[in-house]
Amino acid sequence: MGAALAFELHGADGVARVGRLRTPHGDVQTPAFMPVATYGAVRGISPDELTRAGAQIVLANTYHLHERPGEQIVEKCGGLHGFTGWRGPWLTDSGGFQVTSLADSARVDEDGVTFSSPVDGTRRQLTPENAVAIQEALGADIAMVLDECIPATGDTDSVRTRAAMERTLRWAERARRARRRGDQWLFGIVQGGGDAALRRTSARATCDIGFDGYAHGGLGLGEDASARTAMLAIAHEELPASAPRYLMGIGRPVDLVDAIANGVDLFDCVLPTRHARHGVLFTRAGLLRLRNARYRDDPLPPEPGCDCETCARFSRAYLRHLLRAGESLAGRLASLHNLRFYLRLMEESRVAIREGRYGAFRAEIAERCAGALP
Amino acid sequence: MGAALAFELHGADGVARVGRLRTPHGDVQTPAFMPVATYGAVRGISPDELTRAGAQIVLANTYHLHERPGEQIVEKCGGLHGFTGWRGPWLTDSGGFQVTSLADSARVDEDGVTFSSPVDGTRRQLTPENAVAIQEALGADIAMVLDECIPATGDTDSVRTRAAMERTLRWAERARRARRRGDQWLFGIVQGGGDAALRRTSARATCDIGFDGYAHGGLGLGEDASARTAMLAIAHEELPASAPRYLMGIGRPVDLVDAIANGVDLFDCVLPTRHARHGVLFTRAGLLRLRNARYRDDPLPPEPGCDCETCARFSRAYLRHLLRAGESLAGRLASLHNLRFYLRLMEESRVAIREGRYGAFRAEIAERCAGALP
Repeated sequence: MGAALAFELHGADGVARVGRLRTPHGDVQTPAFMPVATYGAVRGISPDELTRAGAQIVLANTYHLHERPGEQIVEKCGGLHGFTGWRGPWLTDSGGFQVTSLADSARVDEDGVTFSSPVDGTRRQLTPENAVAIQEALGADIAMVLDECIPATGDTDSVRTRAAMERTLRWAERARRARRRGDQWLFGIVQGGGDAALRRTSARATCDIGFDGYAHGGLGLGEDASARTAMLAIAHEELPASAPRYLMGIGRPVDLVDAIANGVDLFDCVLPTRHARHGVLFTRAGLLRLRNARYRDDPLPPEPGCDCETCARFSRAYLRHLLRAGESLAGRLASLHNLRFYLRLMEESRVAIREGRYGAFRAEIAERCAGALP
Repeated sequence: MGAALAFELHGADGVARVGRLRTPHGDVQTPAFMPVATYGAVRGISPDELTRAGAQIVLANTYHLHERPGEQIVEKCGGLHGFTGWRGPWLTDSGGFQVTSLADSARVDEDGVTFSSPVDGTRRQLTPENAVAIQEALGADIAMVLDECIPATGDTDSVRTRAAMERTLRWAERARRARRRGDQWLFGIVQGGGDAALRRTSARATCDIGFDGYAHGGLGLGEDASARTAMLAIAHEELPASAPRYLMGIGRPVDLVDAIANGVDLFDCVLPTRHARHGVLFTRAGLLRLRNARYRDDPLPPEPGCDCETCARFSRAYLRHLLRAGESLAGRLASLHNLRFYLRLMEESRVAIREGRYGAFRAEIAERCAGALP
């Protein structure tokens, strides 16, 4: 481990906790939300805007960057930090989830994932070893092991869930051995679907291999909230409290405050930017759907009282007009608001934990953010 | 005329001139370039970015805003200044050019232009009177009369060119009588195709009706440079030197410096933003085509030495990657550069005129900006 990387716990309220992740490219106060920069850019948003919105760390998709422009180009241009202009911390996923869901004719075997590139049609393979090598070339501060993901929805048979969990463990060992860089953290991933015993086994064994942090895989894919909470709790019993915990790809504001209550430190999700591009804005009073005709001449900002750059300058009427006219500025301004909403939610969660009132904060968010704007 | 609107000439170098247009929403140093905000937003760019790039006045398309969201909505939300957040001066076109080229089954007669709305299919009419009324509702600082546009390419018969020119004069009189607001300037438009005598007649008669400024119509539609120069010169012999002169919809950097040499004060063109979205960047060494493979790992900014926000932070390699990945940030960052290129060209033109070296400046631009990057 590089000396520049460390995780410190600063306080807790019940199981919820606040901490600080130190990286060679800056600190991350946790719980933290990572905006998603699929191709090395949060859609339509500049690095300066991310900073002003309060982003501390950004996630990029290894599979997409491997396809385009290729990790060699990124490496030659100074890694993700130099190439993209976001000079704060980066986390990259392993590429496994995307390759399985997006690439043509992906096939998983013990070696890894074989697939056809949608860009040039060539047959390629993603293995535990080259997933690490690609991420080392991209130069993220935190890399993820390649895993085989089985949803926790309970409709997958236990033999297949167990096999994928065990393969993920073997891949994790291979990834661990493949590491070359000392200045990049590597996180293991807990699998096991919706099966409590498998989750426990996976967490314990992943922990035994030894990683700098641990992620929960296979969640946020349709399971109900109580099942997710149970899977998190079981894994956390086995994982070292001193290591950061990352719930991948989730989710709605209520999902984040629930998971924080269960001891999660890191999140990423495309929801704030994807919703924004479709004209759906998060507010403390519920979802605001810009296409609704009631906003056609509404002079209010998207969320009165919000401190984002969009709410400071633009009305619902103007954003609705831009959206309907197909102007890309609509997605950009809406994304800035939604990202600020998520990042402020994390800031306020940290304060609430420090002040020992996280339970009340969580209940308030759950009540107010559910449903549509009244 | 509102007292808040005035045009002052501050100096000249040959026929080229520098001046200041005073509007209720701020001053415009001329020669000036107006970025095009079709639907009330320069594609992908925020008002703050326009200010930082040096924009002084922005153009919106009356026809597009009439279709969506409708001038009543814009008026209710504080006019263009309040609705869009660009609080500096606005110019709106009459809508005539767009309605004729974009609307379904447009038909021109003495009343005006009748067309079918592409938004809701209803049959509507744009007349000299309601073109003024719509622009007064939009609240621009400068409005344009409805005109009938005939290109100066010489392939239109002189009977038709004369008829359109004469109709434009009758429409100009009707527009002049239709004005209600005293805080908005109205510009007349010189037509006459590529016919010198018709241009002279049009300029003299438009001038006799009396407007706050004068525009050249029907240029930039395929005529050669010498024909355009001749048409500008003839009209300028008839137009009052004390009024601002606007060359609509043009053009390339070399077109702008040529027209400034012929005494033009105002320009607008979609070229910098449209080229940007296609990955074509203006530089003082020629056009840079981002899709060219030579830029795949080029760490240089688009134009070394440029003071724009894009060149300060991003490489050709990154912009090329974003463009190829279909990321909207590509168009935004490239637009910021191209707009800054145009706005800087105007700044430097003004300095060169004041310093009596405009001829040399013009020759340098013509030589260096033509063609592709070596």
